[in-house]
Amino acid sequence: MTPMIDRSPHSETLVKEAAAPVIAVDAMGGDRGPEIVVAGVARALSAIPNLRVLLFGDEMRLTPHLPVELAERAAIRHCDSVITMDEAPVAALRRGRGSSMWRTLDAVSAGEADAAISAGNTGALMTMSLVRLKAAPAVERPAIAALWPSRNAAGYNVVLDVGANLRGEARDLVSAALLGAEYAKIVLDTPKPRVALLNVGVEEHKGRAELHAAAAHLTLLADAPDAPFVFTGFIEGDRIAERDADVIATDGFTGNVALKTAEGAASLIGGYLREALSEGWRARLGALLAAPALAGFKRRVDPRRVNGGVFLGLNGVVVKSHGGADAVGFASAIDLAARLAKRDIAGRVAAQVAKIAFDGESSAADSSSNLTAGSR
Amino acid sequence: MTPMIDRSPHSETLVKEAAAPVIAVDAMGGDRGPEIVVAGVARALSAIPNLRVLLFGDEMRLTPHLPVELAERAAIRHCDSVITMDEAPVAALRRGRGSSMWRTLDAVSAGEADAAISAGNTGALMTMSLVRLKAAPAVERPAIAALWPSRNAAGYNVVLDVGANLRGEARDLVSAALLGAEYAKIVLDTPKPRVALLNVGVEEHKGRAELHAAAAHLTLLADAPDAPFVFTGFIEGDRIAERDADVIATDGFTGNVALKTAEGAASLIGGYLREALSEGWRARLGALLAAPALAGFKRRVDPRRVNGGVFLGLNGVVVKSHGGADAVGFASAIDLAARLAKRDIAGRVAAQVAKIAFDGESSAADSSSNLTAGSR
Repeated sequence: MTPMIDRSPHSETLVKEAAAPVIAVDAMGGDRGPEIVVAGVARALSAIPNLRVLLFGDEMRLTPHLPVELAERAAIRHCDSVITMDEAPVAALRRGRGSSMWRTLDAVSAGEADAAISAGNTGALMTMSLVRLKAAPAVERPAIAALWPSRNAAGYNVVLDVGANLRGEARDLVSAALLGAEYAKIVLDTPKPRVALLNVGVEEHKGRAELHAAAAHLTLLADAPDAPFVFTGFIEGDRIAERDADVIATDGFTGNVALKTAEGAASLIGGYLREALSEGWRARLGALLAAPALAGFKRRVDPRRVNGGVFLGLNGVVVKSHGGADAVGFASAIDLAARLAKRDIAGRVAAQVAKIAFDGESSAADSSSNLTAGSR
Repeated sequence: MTPMIDRSPHSETLVKEAAAPVIAVDAMGGDRGPEIVVAGVARALSAIPNLRVLLFGDEMRLTPHLPVELAERAAIRHCDSVITMDEAPVAALRRGRGSSMWRTLDAVSAGEADAAISAGNTGALMTMSLVRLKAAPAVERPAIAALWPSRNAAGYNVVLDVGANLRGEARDLVSAALLGAEYAKIVLDTPKPRVALLNVGVEEHKGRAELHAAAAHLTLLADAPDAPFVFTGFIEGDRIAERDADVIATDGFTGNVALKTAEGAASLIGGYLREALSEGWRARLGALLAAPALAGFKRRVDPRRVNGGVFLGLNGVVVKSHGGADAVGFASAIDLAARLAKRDIAGRVAAQVAKIAFDGESSAADSSSNLTAGSR
């Protein structure tokens, strides 16, 4: 529709500086429109002094929302096509080569940007990332890692996979555990992360057969003298947010449900608290007095504060922002991308995974364990 | 060890009254010892005037904790053996025929009690329930249903399976959905419950192949003119606690993880709130003023208030209390058992399931959908 002529005050090119991270942004992803993405970019540019951004999307819609004073640090690259949220990954891949999502990944692949970020269709983003950036050596299937608020010293645990690979065979679980351990070393600053497998009980016989096979393998790997992690065994859902482990590995289906369920629980509890503190003059006065403390509490439980899942196991950094993220949430995902951009996560992870590659076969499903349920 | 002689002031028999529910209690289950179970029983007996209880367990440990004034409504039946929390179901079944858990179920099977309750090993309880009470006609695999706090009119949704059947094939998901619909009619007082399948996205192509097969089948069943439920399609984890559906069906692995994860999130958020309200005089004074409102809030999010998963699809009512439940939690589970005891849930469910039996085959796993992740 729009001819590809640069009519904006923004340039299509950026002066690349050695120390300054360049983040490629898919401006058309997300449920709330490109305006929100651009507002998030503006916020991030104001907060991170040396950040530079390449924005991919409909120039006519992006330009009006980007403050002119940020123009020299943000270039807009016009794209005509967009991957929609409900498009199946295979369809997206077939027709999406010129889309904002594809070109965002392309910028990383070409070395123009240090990291890519999109709030778009997760399945399409993962499929395109696999095609454009390829899985890193020794990683069969990448995983999406989330930072999970916890009682750990760092304030977070790493939970993965939260939606990339729904399969969950033993080798997928082991791969997720190793990827998560390398990621945790960097983002949680833990030299030897404690890794656990999410299960319906902590006892050895609990859960699905593939979990038993993965646990046996991780036990062997962690017993090696130079093991880069400690394997703590199985962990149940109610301990994810505790001090028990730094990395909680699971399949992409379970992890995705767990993450969203925790968000839903937080939202319900927040609603209950608001209702309680608005009933009667005593409660309202108390809430008024405690307002600064409650605001701090609200910030602490705000899921937007830790927005951004990271695709681990690719030859490049890809951050997936929440589809419903607002400008604050999107800025937080850009901040995460900028922090990871220069750390060569993919390289480190690949090196580690190659060193202790998974050579076991995923055990055949043992249907006799299907009735081995959780201890509650 | 203890000779089976009745040295207690409590009788081994109860006068059975037509309108009074008799609950068989496995007093040796749970992580916190039989004292907590007996304290819960005492609490329930005080709260529910016509309740009668049969307690199975070590008489020497139970007797001292049961107030003498409750003796005529609570009989103790001594059992020497106990199923431990980490015992594999098959092992428990092999040696557990005289155990407190077995004899508790036996009381229901023999018609002495209207419902059974245990806080013990879930896998063993389900396996023994299947052997002793048998699956109801037309139900292949029973499911455990939980009441989930929600923004629905009833204040709760039904979520199942939360730990009985880890398999999660299409027919298991359909069976869970039908069982949940019948249960919801009774406990939520909803004439035509809205049923949804838990998935990683709401779009048709999202998630595992078995979910697509189950959705297709439920769509057909719900289209029938006399369908006892409405099928609303897929639902994501963050909408479980909303008004979108009355029944959320999933496999026992995912449901168990989701339930415990929500509990963990609630616990973390509660901790954050306590910290926030104890920092500085303003916050502390505010919390003092709002204390009654905060106490109401605390009661509302207390997981003990809705303690008790129900095993659906058996020829009898079996309630599984949380292993870590305290006396309040155990009393709440007994209250649930008493409410269900006279309603012939199993009979109603069986009749409904038989009417619309699942005749489809679970679709073969389509590995091409493994990378079709959630929309976030």
